[in-house]
Amino acid sequence: MNTQSPGLGQHEVVVESAEHLQSVTELSNSQFADVVLVYRDRLQSLAKDPRLVSGLVFKNMGADSGATLEHVHSQIVALPAVPERLKIELTGAAQRCEQHGTCAFCAMLENELADGVRVVAGNGSYVAFCPYAARMPYETWILPRRHGSHFEQISAAAAADLADLLRQVIGAVEDVSDGGAYNYVIHSAPFDMPAADHYHWHVEVIPRLTRVAGFEWGTGWHINPVTPEEAAQRLRNLLPGAEEKRSSAASLPIS
Amino acid sequence: MNTQSPGLGQHEVVVESAEHLQSVTELSNSQFADVVLVYRDRLQSLAKDPRLVSGLVFKNMGADSGATLEHVHSQIVALPAVPERLKIELTGAAQRCEQHGTCAFCAMLENELADGVRVVAGNGSYVAFCPYAARMPYETWILPRRHGSHFEQISAAAAADLADLLRQVIGAVEDVSDGGAYNYVIHSAPFDMPAADHYHWHVEVIPRLTRVAGFEWGTGWHINPVTPEEAAQRLRNLLPGAEEKRSSAASLPIS
Repeated sequence: MNTQSPGLGQHEVVVESAEHLQSVTELSNSQFADVVLVYRDRLQSLAKDPRLVSGLVFKNMGADSGATLEHVHSQIVALPAVPERLKIELTGAAQRCEQHGTCAFCAMLENELADGVRVVAGNGSYVAFCPYAARMPYETWILPRRHGSHFEQISAAAAADLADLLRQVIGAVEDVSDGGAYNYVIHSAPFDMPAADHYHWHVEVIPRLTRVAGFEWGTGWHINPVTPEEAAQRLRNLLPGAEEKRSSAASLPIS
Repeated sequence: MNTQSPGLGQHEVVVESAEHLQSVTELSNSQFADVVLVYRDRLQSLAKDPRLVSGLVFKNMGADSGATLEHVHSQIVALPAVPERLKIELTGAAQRCEQHGTCAFCAMLENELADGVRVVAGNGSYVAFCPYAARMPYETWILPRRHGSHFEQISAAAAADLADLLRQVIGAVEDVSDGGAYNYVIHSAPFDMPAADHYHWHVEVIPRLTRVAGFEWGTGWHINPVTPEEAAQRLRNLLPGAEEKRSSAASLPIS
């Protein structure tokens, strides 16, 4: 089989409900857990095709996020090459691991839990926080506490925990932006990369309240008018009982 | 003077007309030539401040481009570091120059003029074409025929020629998109970089008819539903007498 078919790929649309709902917050916990299991199972299946090198799961919600459908849905693509952004992440993570001997994402998680001011919420398996150098207002990352490079290796219990936390974060993002647009993207290591110490799969939730304009196109830098500390505080305040969750999250072991 | 002030920079807004116009196509040729001279003169002035390392000129036109003002305007920023995107361009251009002994942009210009199918328009000083790997529908680059790394070194005559061609391209982009949003960005070498053989300043015109969605965020790759050949043809057809211009442009020497 030709492993260098540059024009080849797979694109699947996950219709998340048979009803005409628009937001994942309208799904039940178990329905959204099923969606996350579909992501996992489809990636596992796509990874078996040796022509497909890397998988990407993402959601576009609202016209400003690039969504062209209202009905609640997300997308899975499998690509014949490692995407540019993932390549940059992998290279940076490998360099950092070589220099410091530890995973950059594990270190980030440890720092964020110790610091606390950017943590949004957590549960037994995951922590949600606004990254230190957030590109967008209310940008939130969800990292698994237990190190792992490949999303598609998670257990059913971990999938249910991810669905639970992602749904909470999205609810808060929708509330803080009055139903504004957002994307989320699952970043996971390439299919054929062996389980790695230096890469840590994660979810990036990217609210689309500001626009990529000439400055961003020209520089590759983002102007973000909301500090991640302020963003995290506002998101926390929109989660019922979030302050307590944060305290208990901070006291749980991270791996 | 501290040359490492990371929080420092300069931001200027160029109000391009005293009248409440919205498009540069409503300016006269000489008014827009004055605007380009302002870009040049302000960058020359900002370059004298040793704390400022790199300058960027850009326009956001229409809400989808990130514009927050209607009145015809553009922006100049001077930054205390070389922007990420420019750094990537400079690195790639330097590597290419080392391998092939020529400027990548000069080679691109030569290829585009020889091929012709992606050329939009040209005049004595500049060529406008849709790049081979255009990220956006109708994306158009304007390159000076004469190699130069720094935009702010252009003559007044070259500024008038740039204004003329940029205004034509924008007119065609506005027509093809029914007044849709766009950005343009002038890419120029850092202030303190000596005149270089490997970098070639240019203008990127980026129509904003498609959105940066989850796929683009996750991969760094762009889905562009319009081939650059098709885009160039449509833009050419919207320039009065553009076919003749293209033929004469192709026959002019490129440096």
